[in-house]
Amino acid sequence: MSHSVLSAETRSQIDEPSSLVARFGAHEPLMMDAGVPLGPWQIAYQTYGTLNPDRSNAVLICHALTGDQHVANVSPVTGKPGWWSTMVGAGLPIDTGRFFVICANVVGGCMGTTGPASVDPHTGQPYSLAFPVVTIRDMVRAQAALLDRLGIETLFCVIGGSMGGMQVLQWAASYPERVFAALPIAAAARHSAQNIAFHEVGRQAIMADPDWRQGRYLVEGTRPDKGLAVARMGAHITYLSEQALHRKFGRNFQDRKAPTFSFDADFQIESYLRYQGLSFVERFDANSYLYVTRAMDYFDLAAEHGGVLARAFRGSATRFCVISFTSDWLFPTSDSRAIVHALNAAAASVGFVEVESDKGHDAFLLEEPTLFAAARGFIDAAARVRGLA
Amino acid sequence: MSHSVLSAETRSQIDEPSSLVARFGAHEPLMMDAGVPLGPWQIAYQTYGTLNPDRSNAVLICHALTGDQHVANVSPVTGKPGWWSTMVGAGLPIDTGRFFVICANVVGGCMGTTGPASVDPHTGQPYSLAFPVVTIRDMVRAQAALLDRLGIETLFCVIGGSMGGMQVLQWAASYPERVFAALPIAAAARHSAQNIAFHEVGRQAIMADPDWRQGRYLVEGTRPDKGLAVARMGAHITYLSEQALHRKFGRNFQDRKAPTFSFDADFQIESYLRYQGLSFVERFDANSYLYVTRAMDYFDLAAEHGGVLARAFRGSATRFCVISFTSDWLFPTSDSRAIVHALNAAAASVGFVEVESDKGHDAFLLEEPTLFAAARGFIDAAARVRGLA
Repeated sequence: MSHSVLSAETRSQIDEPSSLVARFGAHEPLMMDAGVPLGPWQIAYQTYGTLNPDRSNAVLICHALTGDQHVANVSPVTGKPGWWSTMVGAGLPIDTGRFFVICANVVGGCMGTTGPASVDPHTGQPYSLAFPVVTIRDMVRAQAALLDRLGIETLFCVIGGSMGGMQVLQWAASYPERVFAALPIAAAARHSAQNIAFHEVGRQAIMADPDWRQGRYLVEGTRPDKGLAVARMGAHITYLSEQALHRKFGRNFQDRKAPTFSFDADFQIESYLRYQGLSFVERFDANSYLYVTRAMDYFDLAAEHGGVLARAFRGSATRFCVISFTSDWLFPTSDSRAIVHALNAAAASVGFVEVESDKGHDAFLLEEPTLFAAARGFIDAAARVRGLA
Repeated sequence: MSHSVLSAETRSQIDEPSSLVARFGAHEPLMMDAGVPLGPWQIAYQTYGTLNPDRSNAVLICHALTGDQHVANVSPVTGKPGWWSTMVGAGLPIDTGRFFVICANVVGGCMGTTGPASVDPHTGQPYSLAFPVVTIRDMVRAQAALLDRLGIETLFCVIGGSMGGMQVLQWAASYPERVFAALPIAAAARHSAQNIAFHEVGRQAIMADPDWRQGRYLVEGTRPDKGLAVARMGAHITYLSEQALHRKFGRNFQDRKAPTFSFDADFQIESYLRYQGLSFVERFDANSYLYVTRAMDYFDLAAEHGGVLARAFRGSATRFCVISFTSDWLFPTSDSRAIVHALNAAAASVGFVEVESDKGHDAFLLEEPTLFAAARGFIDAAARVRGLA
């Protein structure tokens, strides 16, 4: 098998990740919403800080579409700081000096938790499209199994942005008694038609690449890198705002003063996008991209509750804080408001912060002092109620 | 040569269109902004109505990215009504009973005007990427040559939406004395970073298709249909609004009641997008898509005038009406306002209408009574001033 672009480091993460791993045997399958058991299976995770004797200070962080468990340590694949190292650490809003922080790679991912690139023990080959389609609820069910394994009954807080926020909402709905506080950021209780549309274009770009080989590229020794890069480029635009693109790039030329009258990357924005596509294929598996986007598309929390979102939270004692960003057009504030309205209708405890930002959806990953202040305030207040020092 | 998907009808339109054609010999080249002469060359066009004895009632309609000259007659390729048959016709706002209406395929297009799919007389093969990169100004220069050929000195009105609106602005800037009235709709005086980004993703999707063959697919007998379909799918999302997608499709399933847990088109929006992609490749040439998107990216009318848009319109006697749509996020109202501000600064005559619509950018092509009323009002008033009955 030759893997021209996906780095050897990324390949090795799929089955033998540079993190903790909880393994579940064939007798402990993960029951998937698709109606099939997955087993044996494994879930890769990182922890930071120390679990207190009461086991009451655990914080679960749920990652977004292309995230992973390396939330606050240097990535073993890219060598870059953890994807939320501004939010998680000693003295930071999610304070590893006070909390036991857990972050796990999602089911269907490619960083050590079982996914389509993992070897199917029944065939000895990568699952590829034989892997069952994953849902957000499956991801959460896998995380719950991990917590059982770790002996953690109740989470002090579940936190996540974007798809991570979907998992937060699913946690609160599926396991209300296990969630003391919940912080969904830049999220939605269901994926919109426009967002499904953008995902579908990305999937079609991957599946149009002849090197995708009907999903069997790992077996056949090819890589749909071009298709995956196009998918990433398109998605990346949706993570930013028009204002941010204008501020960062505008119509500036890349290393030239005038257009070349060609299809080269004349504009900085073109060069930037091409780089985003090329660097992404080094760290992500194309089939995982199909599966994880599909999980987001399928997410519709109200649909599980007769179409009434408030019923998902009925009787909940969880304390919620919902955060959105003014320039986020992928998960706009209206999506967060719908969550808040449902929580209000369920008589749940909920705060809501709309952060003024021009950085678009990606603002949740960036230096946003108002986000940090809101998260810190909510977490500190909840910790006091919980009796955590 | 085999052309599996691009229909024979579309193929034949490239060199022998079902419309009028003005042919220019090698001694009458089109001088392109890229710095090279194009010749011999031809421009395909349609006309409707009758030129009056004063030659004062000519209306030029400029088409958008994937439009063509068949504005008000059944398309010879698709068999569908002309793309603006709601706007152009007897008794309609652009009244073919009163005006002599002209619409020409743009340079770089694939419906009979010389473009990358045309045969290069010097080689006997399609130009492909040897075709010079086209600008909006080149398109307008070609239209001016057509009007010269037709003996029309002055246009009563130039009208167009989206890229058509860019041409309207270029007309008013390049040939102010030839334009009595100008009606740019859902347009901008320069293409934004976000819009360049979306175009670049589409181009990369085409160029990633191995059947594109470095642009030589017409020579090599292949077709980059998959890449072009992906490009169209992505672009199509940007033509609609989130509200319109939600209203038309929401999260409705296609011919099923529950998700299939697969990568089939479970959702109506997926099925719709796939259809848009498949039908587009039957009627459009992939290299033309590269060239025409590039022309839009390069458009920056202020840049031609020292960065000051108002200078493009200095001393203009043209009467302008600028129209935008509230839900258009591709060419938002702020882009139209920038045009209006520049016209005001140039002391030009300008009206501005922001049409309330949830249909997004495509609203300019759809049944929008407020658009029709605004266009009719502007045109009728200008016609009275012009002394047209």
